[in-house]
Amino acid sequence: MGAKSEKIKKLRRKLKALRAELGKGGAPSVSPLAPSGFPAIPAIGGVRFAAAAAGVKYAGRTDVMLTELAPGSTIAGVFTKSATRAAPVLDAQSKIASTSDGGAAFIVNSGNANAFTGHDGREAVTAITGQVAGMLNVPEARVFSSSTGVIGEPLPHDRITAKLMELKAGLAADRIEDAARAIMTTDTFAKGAFAELALEGGRVRIAGIAKGSGMIAPDMATMLGYLFTDAKISQPDLQDMVARLAAKSFNCITVDSDTSTSDTVLLAATGASGVVAGPGSAFEEALRGVMTDLAHQVVRDGEGATKFVEIAITGARDDADAHRAGMAVANSPLVKTALAGEDPNWGRIVMAVGKSGAEADRDALSIWFGDILVAEKGWISPDYREADGAAYMKAQDLRIRVDLGMSTGEATVWTCDLTHGYITINADYRS
Amino acid sequence: MGAKSEKIKKLRRKLKALRAELGKGGAPSVSPLAPSGFPAIPAIGGVRFAAAAAGVKYAGRTDVMLTELAPGSTIAGVFTKSATRAAPVLDAQSKIASTSDGGAAFIVNSGNANAFTGHDGREAVTAITGQVAGMLNVPEARVFSSSTGVIGEPLPHDRITAKLMELKAGLAADRIEDAARAIMTTDTFAKGAFAELALEGGRVRIAGIAKGSGMIAPDMATMLGYLFTDAKISQPDLQDMVARLAAKSFNCITVDSDTSTSDTVLLAATGASGVVAGPGSAFEEALRGVMTDLAHQVVRDGEGATKFVEIAITGARDDADAHRAGMAVANSPLVKTALAGEDPNWGRIVMAVGKSGAEADRDALSIWFGDILVAEKGWISPDYREADGAAYMKAQDLRIRVDLGMSTGEATVWTCDLTHGYITINADYRS
Repeated sequence: MGAKSEKIKKLRRKLKALRAELGKGGAPSVSPLAPSGFPAIPAIGGVRFAAAAAGVKYAGRTDVMLTELAPGSTIAGVFTKSATRAAPVLDAQSKIASTSDGGAAFIVNSGNANAFTGHDGREAVTAITGQVAGMLNVPEARVFSSSTGVIGEPLPHDRITAKLMELKAGLAADRIEDAARAIMTTDTFAKGAFAELALEGGRVRIAGIAKGSGMIAPDMATMLGYLFTDAKISQPDLQDMVARLAAKSFNCITVDSDTSTSDTVLLAATGASGVVAGPGSAFEEALRGVMTDLAHQVVRDGEGATKFVEIAITGARDDADAHRAGMAVANSPLVKTALAGEDPNWGRIVMAVGKSGAEADRDALSIWFGDILVAEKGWISPDYREADGAAYMKAQDLRIRVDLGMSTGEATVWTCDLTHGYITINADYRS
Repeated sequence: MGAKSEKIKKLRRKLKALRAELGKGGAPSVSPLAPSGFPAIPAIGGVRFAAAAAGVKYAGRTDVMLTELAPGSTIAGVFTKSATRAAPVLDAQSKIASTSDGGAAFIVNSGNANAFTGHDGREAVTAITGQVAGMLNVPEARVFSSSTGVIGEPLPHDRITAKLMELKAGLAADRIEDAARAIMTTDTFAKGAFAELALEGGRVRIAGIAKGSGMIAPDMATMLGYLFTDAKISQPDLQDMVARLAAKSFNCITVDSDTSTSDTVLLAATGASGVVAGPGSAFEEALRGVMTDLAHQVVRDGEGATKFVEIAITGARDDADAHRAGMAVANSPLVKTALAGEDPNWGRIVMAVGKSGAEADRDALSIWFGDILVAEKGWISPDYREADGAAYMKAQDLRIRVDLGMSTGEATVWTCDLTHGYITINADYRS
């Protein structure tokens, strides 16, 4: 009797451990790499947010967010280069360079990407942006919509437009976290970042939100990201900065090498602070910090991720080659599974650099795990001990540096590991 | 009592199912996609094989194979384009165009790739090829070595050279399966293929062996493949054929998008049949069949694979664009996990085509699962039923066709699904 009860307990424990390994722990939990909570973000002058539950696909949660921007705001953005980009992306791209003294708005839903939806997809965008423009009395060319979620299903846009009055009534300066929460799909935490800095003319604020967890390998843009500042910045300067900084932040992350059809980053400057800012300044540095923070949060919420990994490439022919080598390492399934297994398998890093297309010479390559020199000029370092590498790999945040020994090109990219959790999340029927 | 026994039985069943899902079924079993057995391959005139257990890394199995080729044989080959290719690859590339009336040899070990091994790596190759040349009395420029296995560890070449006399004594025309078995690493079955055909001058035979299971995304070459024919073919004609056919066979497969540092395919023509053959003939067609068969076997042994998937791209701008789109679909982790989950998730196929860099227009794209039209000209087909797609996905061998609607370019590539088994195999410590 007792022996059997013991056996049942033991079998149950084993079952629980295996289920955890398979990511079958029941309700989706928060990523182990998540920050402790959503940051405290004060109001950004000229920006108000609202969120509502439109039931686009999900039940029991918000799935649409509205952002209202004050008259005089400038807006810039970068978008996916996918050849099959979604209807709202095409619409937003056509509008991004337009300027106006009127207000502006962002309207974003989760649950359905309105991608590969043909003529109906375009009509849905027109219906949504047209009604938002009328309701908020802003030019239609200044209403930007995004949709994120399943590809190839018609967007039930009536459910969204039915909630517009509720959204308008809910607009408030302190609801940015609600907005961040409404745009989540497989994300396990809401992503926000904030900076405040003193410029010559006074203090300005920068706030941003983002979503993204899988299908992350942005191409000149990213998943969805929205950034707001009360600084006064011309549209060309704003576009210049968002493009340059996206290339160093969102474009330097990858979860699974798959590029979304909906990637969009929008940056709005309301000018409410009255402080003028522009490229090449302390403002740009602060903006870079906010964008990099959001990009890292996307990686930290990578599907199934248990490790956050920085890959730094130095000594490349040029920066583009360094980026190419870094992304090849960051995307390699064999490197990513080795990271998951806490295996200091530097041979797989050599392999990934070799296939990347970046100029490399086996006999000039050096590799570090953190501060540990692993391999030098094409051969394992005489001082390297596998036990040191294995101990280093136990950490949650890792840094791998590869010096190509060619010239001075460099790039840093960020990725996560590839685990059973990723398979479980994505092999489920129509995730 | 009975209830508890029942409970124990039930828990054990659940445990067994979960372990199977995690690929923890104990000893590595044979891929579910494996052919029924190694094919019957008769002797190829002018070719003899031997295998031995040198203990390079593995215990209790053969890990080195020797092939002797008769005087007058011509040899051609294609090699990985990796920038970090291994010492034996660099050596073989430097020798491939050399001609001689003397005999020739291939010497191949598994367990260690002799890659990223610097000066020591080159010395190991010289020691092995030099001793084989002396022993068999063939020119050193006609001895080709390959090594496959772990990267970055010194090759204990003394263990290989210590077995050379045993290998020489064991040479026999009927030992091709032994040779195929000695070059396996994570392979779960030995791979061989054979064809015989009647040409004007008489009958000729073509036989081939290959290894490969992970780190499979050949770039102008593949894993390891060795092909033999008794036809009489000039070296330039042989090189012409192997390069053209590798591009349509081994270069059209991917397991995990990771390109090996050791990829090598060698093709030897002994001329023992006295029958002359060359490009553009029935011979080339038969050779293509043998090479494609071996390439498919590598995919069927893909790490953790449970599905064999053909991706056919038509209507591309050109063949290169079709190949690009096909490989993007075949390498997409989201497509591959959907296949593992038997999810007819065609939205992920649209995504992969979009990111591929191939010229595409969302509104011209059509997709089929087998004969089922799923999407047409940028929108889901009115006749498509998700239940039909889901039923199709249950099959073990799948065919996905994507028509880009641009022009007449086409390509066919082959891949497998991405499962928990892949993670288990590769996240283990130093696999």
